[in-house]
Parts: sequence; C-alpha cells; structure tokens
Amino acid sequence: MEDNRVKEMLREKVEQIEAVLKIYLPAEEGYQKKVIEAMNYSLMAGGKRLRPMLMQETYKLFGGSGQVIRPFMAAIEMIHTYSLVHDDLPAMDDDEYRRGRKTTHVVYGEAFGILAGDGLLNYAFETALTALEDPDVDAARVGKALSVLARKAGIYGMIGGQTADIEAEDQATPLTGKQLLFIHEKKTAALIQAAMMVGAILAGASEEAVSKIEKCAYNIGIAFQIQDDILDVIGDSKELGKPVGSDEKNHKQTFVTLNGLEQSRKEVALLSEEAVAILTEVEGENTFLTQLILTLIDRRK
Amino acid sequence: MEDNRVKEMLREKVEQIEAVLKIYLPAEEGYQKKVIEAMNYSLMAGGKRLRPMLMQETYKLFGGSGQVIRPFMAAIEMIHTYSLVHDDLPAMDDDEYRRGRKTTHVVYGEAFGILAGDGLLNYAFETALTALEDPDVDAARVGKALSVLARKAGIYGMIGGQTADIEAEDQATPLTGKQLLFIHEKKTAALIQAAMMVGAILAGASEEAVSKIEKCAYNIGIAFQIQDDILDVIGDSKELGKPVGSDEKNHKQTFVTLNGLEQSRKEVALLSEEAVAILTEVEGENTFLTQLILTLIDRRK
Repeated sequence: MEDNRVKEMLREKVEQIEAVLKIYLPAEEGYQKKVIEAMNYSLMAGGKRLRPMLMQETYKLFGGSGQVIRPFMAAIEMIHTYSLVHDDLPAMDDDEYRRGRKTTHVVYGEAFGILAGDGLLNYAFETALTALEDPDVDAARVGKALSVLARKAGIYGMIGGQTADIEAEDQATPLTGKQLLFIHEKKTAALIQAAMMVGAILAGASEEAVSKIEKCAYNIGIAFQIQDDILDVIGDSKELGKPVGSDEKNHKQTFVTLNGLEQSRKEVALLSEEAVAILTEVEGENTFLTQLILTLIDRRK
Repeated sequence: MEDNRVKEMLREKVEQIEAVLKIYLPAEEGYQKKVIEAMNYSLMAGGKRLRPMLMQETYKLFGGSGQVIRPFMAAIEMIHTYSLVHDDLPAMDDDEYRRGRKTTHVVYGEAFGILAGDGLLNYAFETALTALEDPDVDAARVGKALSVLARKAGIYGMIGGQTADIEAEDQATPLTGKQLLFIHEKKTAALIQAAMMVGAILAGASEEAVSKIEKCAYNIGIAFQIQDDILDVIGDSKELGKPVGSDEKNHKQTFVTLNGLEQSRKEVALLSEEAVAILTEVEGENTFLTQLILTLIDRRK
C-alpha cells in the first residue's frame, strides 16, 4: 500500500476507535464527578490507539465480526491510559506534559492522578465484563479473554515490567541484556500481546493459533521498542514525542547503547519480518494489519 | 452466644481466611520481586478480614459449600488492601503507620506504594478469574459475581466514595447529611455489599435474595461507620485504631457531629436490627453471621 493510503486508513480507524471509546465513557455526574472528569481527560487525550486497533484487526483476521470486541477495545485502552497516568505521577517519572497536554495530576492534583488511574484500571474490568450481558455471547471465550487481559496487565505483565524498570534505574551496576529484554517484554510487549490475543480468542481462534499470535505480538512489541531507541539516536523528535538524544543524556541503557545501531536495525528487521510471517502462516493475509505493523515499527515514514 | 465464644470463633475464622489468602499470594521472585514483596507485605499486615468473612458466611447461609468462593475471598481482601495502600500515600492521607506497622510506601518507597496498589487491584481480578478454571463451575454465576465485585469497587462504589470524601475535605461549606451518607455508602458499605452479594450469588441465591442482601449489607456498612464515629467521641482508642477525639480535633464532619450522640446510637441500633431481620427473613438463621454483624457493629465489647 502507498504510505498516504495507509495514513488515511489509520486516521479513519482512529476515529472509529474513538467513537467506540465514547460509548463506554462514564458520564461526568454525581458526587464522584471529578474522578470521572480526570479519567475521561486522560482517556481522550489522543494517541495512536494502537492496542485497540491491533485487537480489532486481529479479531477480523480470524473472522470475527460481532460487537463483543468493543468493550474489550475500550478496556485495553483504559488499562494503557491508567498506566500512563500513574507513570507520570511525581513519585514516578514526574512528567508535566504528555502529547502536548498537561498530565492528569497537573490538571486535577496528585490525589486525583492516583484515583483516576485506579478508576480507569477498575473501570476497564467493569467495561470488559459488560460483554457477558449479551445472552448470545460465548461466555467461555469472554472468560478466557478477560484472564489474558488481566494477566498481561499485571505483575506478570505490564506492572512487572514497570517494577523492573524502576529498579533498574536505582541499581549501581549497568543493565544486562537479559534485564532490558525483560523490561521491554513486560512493559511494552505484554499489552500488545493482550490486544492481539484477546482479538484472536474472541474470534474463536484455536489455542495453537493464539500461542502464535502471542509470539507475533512479542516481536511487534520488542521491535517497536528498539525502533524507539533507534529514533532516539537518529530520529525525528516530532515522531518520537521526546527530544532526540535524551536517552544518552540521561545515561539510559537501551538496546542501541548495548548492541549498536547496526545490530539494532537488523534486529528490528528480523523481528518484524518474522511477525508478518507468523500472521500470514496462521490465517492468511490481512493487508491492513501487515501494513499497520510495518508502519508502527518503522515510524520514520 | 457468649462474648468469649464469639471472640474465639472470630480468631479461628481469621486464621482460616489467612490460610486461604496464602494460597493466592504471588511468589516473591523474578525481576518484579519488589512489587510482589510490597503487595504481600500490605496484604498480610493483619486486620479483621471482615470482607472475606462476611462473604464466606453469606455463601454458607445460602447453602454454598464449594471452593469457588475462595479466589473471591482473596480478591476482595486484595481490593480492600489496595485501597488502604493508596489512601496512605503522601498525596492522599499521608499516613506513616497502619495497624502498628509502617505503611507500604514508607517501607518500599512511594513509587512502590503506587505500584503495589495497582498490582493488588489487578491481581484481585486475576485471582477471581481463576474461579473459571474449574470446568464444573457455573460460569454465569462467576461472571455475575465478577461484575458485582468490579462495580462496587469502582467509581460507582468505593472509588466514588473516596473521591467524594477528598472533595468534601476541600470544600468551603460544611458537609451536608446527603453528602456524608453518599461517602459512607460508597466508601465503606459498597465493598461490604460486594462481599455479601458475591457470597449469595456464588451460592445460587435468587436475584430477589441478592437485592435483599445488598440492602442488609448497606445497613451493616452504615452502622459500622456511624459506630466508628461514636467510638471517636466516647471510645476506646485501642479498638478504634486512632486517637479518641481525632475527628473533632480535625474539624471532621461526621454523623455524630451532624446528628448528636443519642440519635447516632438509635440509628446504629435500628440499622443493625433491620440487617439481622433481613438475613433471617431471606434464608433462616446463621447464628454466627448474626453474631458477627452485632459484634462488628458494637465494637466496645
């Protein structure tokens, strides 16, 4: 596909996803109004909507066509968002801006930064659980999808990666390659795995296919992260969302500082080729999904 | 029952519940070890284990006898615990001690106070979802129980109450009776409702019975809270876990400051009598549950 066509399709899909998110936004009313405002502020702050998009496209790849995917699309974006809101807190990264807007705790105060994050995480599960309200739904599939989502978001997934990342910042010895891979796998790849696995599970994919999707999503997550580190060195600060060279300035150990630019580029190419090959092998072609993955990974375009 | 007999039974039940909790504690290992240590430190810090106890006893009241209740007992205690960990954070109540032990963020640092709370909330859902792994389980009941748990913990339950409480502290005008009742209902009663409703649902109680249990648990929660306010005025700081008179010193509006001691006592008696009457009407007697409720509410004993 041409780059412009891909960009246009991406824009359309983002709009569709934001329309889905709006269905599930809680109304800003009642004595708890302020926390809901803070949640919605965070959730509607823009972004690539990568996780719900990958979820929906994987669902389609396996022939899914129902509405059951929608509450899960909203749920995974809520989980991603809560993790950003808590990461930005003064006790964590202490960030004042994200995507050009003031962060949640700057606008609503620190207590409401904490509460909005808690609210989003909890509401993600409430939202995903509404899938069970449809009497025709396959409850076993929904249960399995919920378990995968919860596992990949928790201490054996994203929260585990966040922990290892914070610990690594405090350690005196340099980060090992194994540690760095753990952090990328858990902090970045786990939620991409959840997105694609939930899509596959809800469409009725076999266990074997779901395992392959897990591997494919792992590759995408790691490639995405290494590409981020490459862009930090060579890159375009507009695409990256942070100043070029900030990793080196912060003495941050990355895949690039550990393995060099050349090796890192090779790794990204290998990982993404393998990811696309797995997809094609599992279920035949979804041209947009393949293109999406390549675009996401190679963000210089 | 005699007071000593009740106390002895309570001790035994607390031990049994802590044994159940230990089944579900995540192992303290891997690169994410520190967040797991902080989670387990918080979870095993003692306490009355009121919510899992009410859940288990309500389950028994409705004839429940299986193991499906166990992951839910652990889950609700994880949710209760995460709420305490986040409440204690510097940006919230800034408490250094709880139940005579240093609070989680004091021991593990503020970032890990936030992460341990997130980890516990997420792990609560992971744990409750393991109930679906038993192929003989009634998945519809588990789904309903999950939805109630999530709802009562979130912005329409506990988090909503916490929000209203923080907002009330900042408002210039005095708290209204309606606001105060909202805070108590959501912050205290909601999770007690979740405990008892989940017990009833998993035992197969009718929708009508679950509604009555919701009302009963509401009464228990509100009575418990008013009794707390009474104890603050007349009380025993050992039982209360905070210095007597601290509400007045902090100019905190409570049910007692709004309605007086006499009226507050009447209200507690009315609410608890009604709670016990609902239980008896719904399902006949569970002597221990009745006694538990009366003991919990009248904590001068």
